[in-house]
Amino acid sequence: MIDPVVLKGFRDSLPCQEIPKKRLISKLEEIFSLYGFSPIDTPALEYTSVLLGKGGGETDKQIFHFQDNGGREVALRFDLTVPFARFVAAHAGEISRPFKRYHISKVWRGENPQKGRYREFYQCDFDIVGVDNAYSDAEILSTMAFCFDTIFQGDSSQYRFHLSHRGLFNEFLDSMGIRDRSVEILRTVDKLRKIGRDEVARLLEEETGSMDKAQGILSFIQVVDGEDYLSTIARLEGLIGHETESSRRMRDIHALLVREGIDGRFMLDSSITRGLDYYTGIVYETFLTALPSIGSVCSGGRYNNLASLYSKEDLPGVGSSIGLDRLLAAVEDLGLPILGSRGSADVLIVSQDKNASYSEDVAIADQLRRKGIRCDIYPFEAKKMKAVYDYSDRNGIPFVLIYDWKGERSLKDTRTQESVRLEASEVAGALEDRLS
Amino acid sequence: MIDPVVLKGFRDSLPCQEIPKKRLISKLEEIFSLYGFSPIDTPALEYTSVLLGKGGGETDKQIFHFQDNGGREVALRFDLTVPFARFVAAHAGEISRPFKRYHISKVWRGENPQKGRYREFYQCDFDIVGVDNAYSDAEILSTMAFCFDTIFQGDSSQYRFHLSHRGLFNEFLDSMGIRDRSVEILRTVDKLRKIGRDEVARLLEEETGSMDKAQGILSFIQVVDGEDYLSTIARLEGLIGHETESSRRMRDIHALLVREGIDGRFMLDSSITRGLDYYTGIVYETFLTALPSIGSVCSGGRYNNLASLYSKEDLPGVGSSIGLDRLLAAVEDLGLPILGSRGSADVLIVSQDKNASYSEDVAIADQLRRKGIRCDIYPFEAKKMKAVYDYSDRNGIPFVLIYDWKGERSLKDTRTQESVRLEASEVAGALEDRLS
Repeated sequence: MIDPVVLKGFRDSLPCQEIPKKRLISKLEEIFSLYGFSPIDTPALEYTSVLLGKGGGETDKQIFHFQDNGGREVALRFDLTVPFARFVAAHAGEISRPFKRYHISKVWRGENPQKGRYREFYQCDFDIVGVDNAYSDAEILSTMAFCFDTIFQGDSSQYRFHLSHRGLFNEFLDSMGIRDRSVEILRTVDKLRKIGRDEVARLLEEETGSMDKAQGILSFIQVVDGEDYLSTIARLEGLIGHETESSRRMRDIHALLVREGIDGRFMLDSSITRGLDYYTGIVYETFLTALPSIGSVCSGGRYNNLASLYSKEDLPGVGSSIGLDRLLAAVEDLGLPILGSRGSADVLIVSQDKNASYSEDVAIADQLRRKGIRCDIYPFEAKKMKAVYDYSDRNGIPFVLIYDWKGERSLKDTRTQESVRLEASEVAGALEDRLS
Repeated sequence: MIDPVVLKGFRDSLPCQEIPKKRLISKLEEIFSLYGFSPIDTPALEYTSVLLGKGGGETDKQIFHFQDNGGREVALRFDLTVPFARFVAAHAGEISRPFKRYHISKVWRGENPQKGRYREFYQCDFDIVGVDNAYSDAEILSTMAFCFDTIFQGDSSQYRFHLSHRGLFNEFLDSMGIRDRSVEILRTVDKLRKIGRDEVARLLEEETGSMDKAQGILSFIQVVDGEDYLSTIARLEGLIGHETESSRRMRDIHALLVREGIDGRFMLDSSITRGLDYYTGIVYETFLTALPSIGSVCSGGRYNNLASLYSKEDLPGVGSSIGLDRLLAAVEDLGLPILGSRGSADVLIVSQDKNASYSEDVAIADQLRRKGIRCDIYPFEAKKMKAVYDYSDRNGIPFVLIYDWKGERSLKDTRTQESVRLEASEVAGALEDRLS
């Protein structure tokens, strides 16, 4: 007998986990499509040299790689960004400029498993490449707003987008004469939520060699209560000493958000830096009002050149990544209705005499399915109702429609135990009422 | 510069390929859910010993396997059946009996790539395990009928399910005294469509050592023009010499199909054997009337014991597998409307003056999206309309809504080149009319 275990850091997805995950993914895909993003896919396995093009770093240690039977060095993709860069270079002649794509799929990393971290997980990315302007920045932000409005049923007070600009930060460091330390400083600031203000101050002093400069940076990244977006830009321009290209972009983006009526969902928060080297323009993170501690559920930003490793074409872009596992956990935690039922069906049809001459049970099933009601048929004669209810219970099926020996029907709500006799013509309506 | 190539036998999926694939998958998932099948997922990577439990055979040579950084022997799954068997053993206490699941996901095999064969491809399986009776057999068949009715918009003459029973075949071999050669004989019969009747006759004579027996088998697997399902059963019983358990099952299944009004889609075809060892009951394949040469697009059958390698529990089951790539190719070939448009959006909104004070373009986009109309916004000022039409063309977007310098709008059909001036209040209706 072989032990039916999965690998460390991997997991099965049971129906009660897979049903809500699929529903969230399909809702997001619908929204991406409404915004004109197209789905693409790339292989799970690629040449190691293609994936590790960037060389060095944490990723190299975590990547699953091996030699295939043909002697090729191959690896499982560890994110969807590198394959996307390879994709746009490979299909340069087949895709439009700009190109808007989304990609929701699994990636693999040999990380040390810890709570909430797995070696196989989903990424959910959407990007616009081939254009660098405020319209495309605003389009990504608008897509995010539509996603979160949908998830929170229009209650935009439930989430907040924190927006910043890497260029603005760099212009500020320039004005302080410490631009050469920007990578370390940005990484330190990125840890603010994790390690707190005092520790950040200590590290910044180390990195800049000056308490004054550390304090200067801290006041730049300070969120001032009650200050609105445009006042924040004005304050930051004051700290830099003048208007800059980046501050103008932030004003342009804001004007577009106002025009769309979604500006209230965004705040300017200079502490958002996104540690990754490749961001050059706006950067953003998304926090949930009711669950601030879980961190950002949707992050991203603008980068200069997506495919430089694979192509000479200059491809600036802006993109966003939704933390699917984290968002799903939050949505479940908050009990949001978007995920619907976790059950395998809405109703279970049961016959106490499967050899009876009536065939109404089958006809009803067909009728219900054509109305979109998910309908399971119990594949035994229901001699023991206990077995039936055990089945509906395990599968989270809320209603049981029972045909007795005479072919008469009753509908039972398994949660309230209420049972009601119905005519054939009443079944569909009764279920529609109860399920809505 | 790194060459942006994919591995031999692997492929990228461009939007024009991924959009129809996703639409077909989501339609099938919807139907599986309507029948009470639940989605599950399993890891792409498993212990090699778990996947190769069956030992030996072609699969072992084709599997992608390696040692991970922790020194474990791991492998990419080569099908969804073995992981499902491992899954039901691992989660025996968490799932119902019967258990109905579907799983649509990628698998990997290091086959020598040839036309239409790839090293990474989708499988689409749905099974009912934990029950062995005619009701569950009929439920799988009914699910298949619903899928194909949906794909062919209710025209059931476009496909045919060929149904047979492994037990019936074995009972026949018993009656001929050659049951001990059943594995070879079944495999030979399975090749009928590929190698033709004469070659099958020759091989059967070799295997049975007798021309008479070969002829006997050929008459058993003969499809008689115009013979209906029940007459075929009667004829087969005649050849065996008596009614059998398997022939009774075939009658019971037929009665259920009649009761559901879908019996016309099924024919009894004893030449269907499915080469695989593990089938023990009904087996079936699905052929398209207009494209017989592409072979079966949906196949499966009943097996005795799914999880015997991992568990002592007896789990009989019946399941089906849709050949997704093949079916997709067929549906595209036949131009069936189920796949809808391959375009990235339904309409592209373009402004000739992006700095104009009107914001109607943005408001219209939002209004259209909320009606489910996929709407892309061109992220530049449309100075050159050629660039705009190049973009809509590359992305397969059929309509362009143009706001001129005065903020007046016109809707252009890029296929007919027709253009019409519209009032703001007319836009949504005009698009709905044209898209339906």
